[in-house]
Amino acid sequence: MRLIHAVAELREALSGQRETAFVPTMGNLHAGHVALAEIAARHGRPVVASIFVNPLQFGAGEDFNRYPRTLQADCAQLEAAGTDIVFAPDVHEMYPEPQTFSVEPPLAGELCGAHRPGHFQGVATVVLKLFNMVQPRYAVFGKKDYQQLFILKGLVRQFNLPIVMVEAETRRADDGLALSSRNGYLTAGERTEAPRLYRLLRAAADRIIAGERNFAGIEDHVARELTDHGWIVDYVSVRNRATLLAPGTDDERFIILVAARLGITRLIDNIEC
Amino acid sequence: MRLIHAVAELREALSGQRETAFVPTMGNLHAGHVALAEIAARHGRPVVASIFVNPLQFGAGEDFNRYPRTLQADCAQLEAAGTDIVFAPDVHEMYPEPQTFSVEPPLAGELCGAHRPGHFQGVATVVLKLFNMVQPRYAVFGKKDYQQLFILKGLVRQFNLPIVMVEAETRRADDGLALSSRNGYLTAGERTEAPRLYRLLRAAADRIIAGERNFAGIEDHVARELTDHGWIVDYVSVRNRATLLAPGTDDERFIILVAARLGITRLIDNIEC
Repeated sequence: MRLIHAVAELREALSGQRETAFVPTMGNLHAGHVALAEIAARHGRPVVASIFVNPLQFGAGEDFNRYPRTLQADCAQLEAAGTDIVFAPDVHEMYPEPQTFSVEPPLAGELCGAHRPGHFQGVATVVLKLFNMVQPRYAVFGKKDYQQLFILKGLVRQFNLPIVMVEAETRRADDGLALSSRNGYLTAGERTEAPRLYRLLRAAADRIIAGERNFAGIEDHVARELTDHGWIVDYVSVRNRATLLAPGTDDERFIILVAARLGITRLIDNIEC
Repeated sequence: MRLIHAVAELREALSGQRETAFVPTMGNLHAGHVALAEIAARHGRPVVASIFVNPLQFGAGEDFNRYPRTLQADCAQLEAAGTDIVFAPDVHEMYPEPQTFSVEPPLAGELCGAHRPGHFQGVATVVLKLFNMVQPRYAVFGKKDYQQLFILKGLVRQFNLPIVMVEAETRRADDGLALSSRNGYLTAGERTEAPRLYRLLRAAADRIIAGERNFAGIEDHVARELTDHGWIVDYVSVRNRATLLAPGTDDERFIILVAARLGITRLIDNIEC
């Protein structure tokens, strides 16, 4: 496995490759990322994983500075998962001049975007840059960041990028907690509490699958349960799965999305139903 | 020469090509466009020219509907200039769904952008789409649309597109009028008046080259001369050539940009000095 820091060296290494499979990450990898790299390897070669903590997608007061940088451990995991190239640029390599161009995505002010102004503009901008550096045939993203995945699928479609988007199921701990680099911020007590998020989502999904259509009631119930157990709720929202808009009366495929904070840790999760 | 209307057919035709040279146009071609196609052919093959009148870059009340569509004549000119493929999608092929993603460029609210809200967002968005469809190695743009060229060079650089931008000098009529599809809107009387724009620019450039640094005075003089002869002036602006920002005291390379209307026809021009 090759570790590459410079865009020019990356282009040289990938010159002529037409079946590259790409996994963009911010590092501090867990089993969910490893699964993405393994899925990538089943779609194309070489497998390229990027590790870049993107300042553009962090707001003021967010965890950009304390986001864990664990390059050596990340590389070991990626190599074991069959990755061919790790691309780990520094901030200057990614942004050699102030980034005055941005991508303006739809839904960027909703759900997580309402609580993280500029986040999805920053995500879409850096992913477009990475796509143009790697020029992959396949790109693999997890469903845990559902709104991000939704936006990036739109980016590829509406900007006509010749990339196949591969979606990976959320990996979870045995107690249901979605794997996330941010789980590392949790105290032992918070870690015990954290699985409530997914338990509530499953119960809510069961109600919708059984025919319940009082979405506001479901949202209120989940939010109240979380609040009663010490969470600060950013949002609980039932949406149309195809549009991420508020569900219409005839809709049949839904997604419930939640973002809530336990102490200093912001967790997100979702469930399709 | 092949005429292609569908993105899928274009991708198929260009599959495996790594030295494509691309000339995006809105059609209604004149000798300036022909020169761009000839320059393209000196850089790479195949030469692809696109013809698409992009609704996204026209504002309310602008000339989208009356912009001349002359596909047959355009193809004849492009074929004579050595073009291999003409890509002429219709609006639905370019925008099969409402374009909710856009590119937000810097300087999009200045100069022409101040008078054409959304114009450069529309230009940058459609050009990014076209670049991703054609995947050229070279792209050729004229200096007549100087702010557009400046923005698209930034687009390529900041989004890391693997494209070499080729700049072409403005082609002019014998009397100095910059060639433009919109010159066809001019009445005979307006056509006689129109060359004043470039005469004033040349005189202003000569003053700057001779050491004059009272840019506001130069701008006022050009604007007054135009107004006195029946033009409606959108702007006359001396800028730093490298940044398109207001010139600093130590700057040595300038560009004078003008947009002004004669009757219903909006003309733009510029001169480096």
